[in-house]
Amino acid sequence: MGGITVLRLGHRIKRDQRISSHVALTARALGADEVVFSGEYDPGLIASVAKVVERWGGGFKVSYTPEWRRFLEERRSQGEYVVHLTMYGVGIQDVEEELRRAYAERGLVLVVGSSKVPIEVYELADVNVAVTNQPHSEVAALAVALDRIHQGRELTKTYPDARNIIQPSRLGKLRKAKKKEEIN
Amino acid sequence: MGGITVLRLGHRIKRDQRISSHVALTARALGADEVVFSGEYDPGLIASVAKVVERWGGGFKVSYTPEWRRFLEERRSQGEYVVHLTMYGVGIQDVEEELRRAYAERGLVLVVGSSKVPIEVYELADVNVAVTNQPHSEVAALAVALDRIHQGRELTKTYPDARNIIQPSRLGKLRKAKKKEEIN
Repeated sequence: MGGITVLRLGHRIKRDQRISSHVALTARALGADEVVFSGEYDPGLIASVAKVVERWGGGFKVSYTPEWRRFLEERRSQGEYVVHLTMYGVGIQDVEEELRRAYAERGLVLVVGSSKVPIEVYELADVNVAVTNQPHSEVAALAVALDRIHQGRELTKTYPDARNIIQPSRLGKLRKAKKKEEIN
Repeated sequence: MGGITVLRLGHRIKRDQRISSHVALTARALGADEVVFSGEYDPGLIASVAKVVERWGGGFKVSYTPEWRRFLEERRSQGEYVVHLTMYGVGIQDVEEELRRAYAERGLVLVVGSSKVPIEVYELADVNVAVTNQPHSEVAALAVALDRIHQGRELTKTYPDARNIIQPSRLGKLRKAKKKEEIN
């Protein structure tokens, strides 16, 4: 495979819809190639992410796996490097070179959990990585990890097939998202 | 004041509890000094953030303002620099030096919205800043902004008064959070 896949564990339809959506959109915006949801199957969540991709462009993929263990084992057997983002891990600042090398040579799976992550995930991972050893947010941890792996290159990515494009503005919301046709 | 304050706009008790909690904990973990909630008054949210501070240490403050306009005007009149994080803004990579200087000299208010941010916020801000011009997450935008303002220094911050401390581990959840007494 190669690239960067984000695996979101333990999704619960009622409780996690917004956080899982933020995980997926953060993955897309900050330079991952796909998100795979696990936990409860949530077609509404998958459709809402797919809709963003349709409007905002790019080739970001979204899917679901009922079996995260098999998924991780398959990806590892294909040579990908499994990185579990957890407050119990080693600091990202100490392993970011390692992550960049694994990304370039093998491809990464970044695993982000929900409230209770099974201990097998810690053991299956090639490395457990923390964005601080403080409790905060899987969305924040994913964002910082992606920004550091890409060293900021993801921030200026363009989406040639986007229907919605924003004109950046310092001082106000001068333009709203516009259809590409209106700009060209 | 000085330091970094995060202002969370438009909180709704039912819909935003988890995202607003992630905003607050991300602010704390990644080196902001306080969070101020606006929107609906949610004592449960404030108490849950205060509980994390009590257990994990540090002097992070959490409060509520019923009037975000007056709050922002007051902070500006005290010399603080108001930064609105929005997908409509200019790229963080183009203004991070400016933000670091303003942080050092004046103190920052980082404003993060909910779904609909009033246009006055864009106008009241000294600068509107985007972490990509793509739709994703206020939690992710806040995380990347803080990491870039602090240039990674926040990642190794220690909390001498913490009751819970984690021993970082590459390969598993070797130790859970422990009371300080058990470690010393």
